[in-house]
Amino acid sequence: MRVVLCRPRHPGNIGAAARALKTMGLSRLHLVTPERYAADDELAEALARASGAGDVLATATLCDSLDSALTGVVCAAAVTARVREIGPPRLAGREAAPQLLAHAARGDEVALVFGSETAGLTNDEVIRCDLCVSLPANPAYSSLNLGAAVQVLCYELRLAALEAASPTGAAVGAAASEARDVLSPPATHDEVERLMLHLEAVMGATGFFDAGNPKRLMPKLRRLFGRAALERDEVNILRGFLASVDDFRRK
Amino acid sequence: MRVVLCRPRHPGNIGAAARALKTMGLSRLHLVTPERYAADDELAEALARASGAGDVLATATLCDSLDSALTGVVCAAAVTARVREIGPPRLAGREAAPQLLAHAARGDEVALVFGSETAGLTNDEVIRCDLCVSLPANPAYSSLNLGAAVQVLCYELRLAALEAASPTGAAVGAAASEARDVLSPPATHDEVERLMLHLEAVMGATGFFDAGNPKRLMPKLRRLFGRAALERDEVNILRGFLASVDDFRRK
Repeated sequence: MRVVLCRPRHPGNIGAAARALKTMGLSRLHLVTPERYAADDELAEALARASGAGDVLATATLCDSLDSALTGVVCAAAVTARVREIGPPRLAGREAAPQLLAHAARGDEVALVFGSETAGLTNDEVIRCDLCVSLPANPAYSSLNLGAAVQVLCYELRLAALEAASPTGAAVGAAASEARDVLSPPATHDEVERLMLHLEAVMGATGFFDAGNPKRLMPKLRRLFGRAALERDEVNILRGFLASVDDFRRK
Repeated sequence: MRVVLCRPRHPGNIGAAARALKTMGLSRLHLVTPERYAADDELAEALARASGAGDVLATATLCDSLDSALTGVVCAAAVTARVREIGPPRLAGREAAPQLLAHAARGDEVALVFGSETAGLTNDEVIRCDLCVSLPANPAYSSLNLGAAVQVLCYELRLAALEAASPTGAAVGAAASEARDVLSPPATHDEVERLMLHLEAVMGATGFFDAGNPKRLMPKLRRLFGRAALERDEVNILRGFLASVDDFRRK
């Protein structure tokens, strides 16, 4: 289970997030191009707000893109209040937590993805995730502080974990994870990304996709395949077909 | 429903608490002898961290004792991680929230009481309350930031309020509205069948599918697209791509 902060603007919030993780028993923090997290005073500010969670900061992973932060991830949950026209299924935090836990219990790598303090997550970032998670905030003022939002969702994950570990909760969780029979391991984020690039390239070659006038073709296809929660074998089948189109074209 | 902060030491945390209240639809904040909350720079720091919740700060009540902050209160809940030898009954935040809500629904004045950042609530303060509320934090590091703890408990109160307000008790899901947003009508059975035939034909033409040795390719693709519950637009996109492959092949 990892927490990803996309483009955080304030080092204090990075520290607050680290503290929130540790209080809820989590430890893996990924930072995608933080804005002010290099100078000594910035790092000191983060460390001060992290309080006793300096170890989480010290082991945080710096990434240059969301894709690299999601490498190996099977299920990524985008935390966002805004409804997107094209996007993955939306769940409340309380509903999402047991689902994410069930993934993690199967050994799948899971990520909670947060946007920047000012603009949240972009549509392009959201569409790379497998589900959207929202908190039922006051419609008149729904802007949680970044550290506070991290705290609430890590709290939900911890409660879900404690519940799953209890004998009565375990049965419920097991029943939910049995809902789908699996033929092959789930595809990771990077495998799906490579499929999308392959699809876009072949669609471009056949003339179906025009990069100069993309419309919303790729987001719509991401939405479709995201909903299906692709397995690795399925990615291989689809890419095998795309490769055959490519070979055919070359001949 | 009021939130009481006893002897908060950092004006930033007062601002963070105000913001946490407002995001969860609460507004009444009581401050018992805050340590640094008088000078201009201290008030400015609180206001900055309050972000859009300056109104909650502006209407906050300054009190000189916990007793005066609890005037008129019928049920006060002390938020504390430490077990006291003598103290009111202890509940987890999730258990306490519906009880506090039930009080409020009867018209009783209810308070959530938080201690200072460094020392928490004294035994003397805890014993003045009617119950103790704790969060299930990491035993190895249970020190939540004050603003973050206020956020989590106000969130629990809001969820309990939404649940109480919804006749079915399914408020959590309702808050996230529908799990899936639909962009176009669902594809009919026959539209999906025509897609499968089209896919099989094009896959045959490119050499990817061998009708003489079909293996389980088509059942696997049916399983994938069946799981996705295709919409009509999606069928049209996929068939548009297949047609472009076909056109390309013919040229």
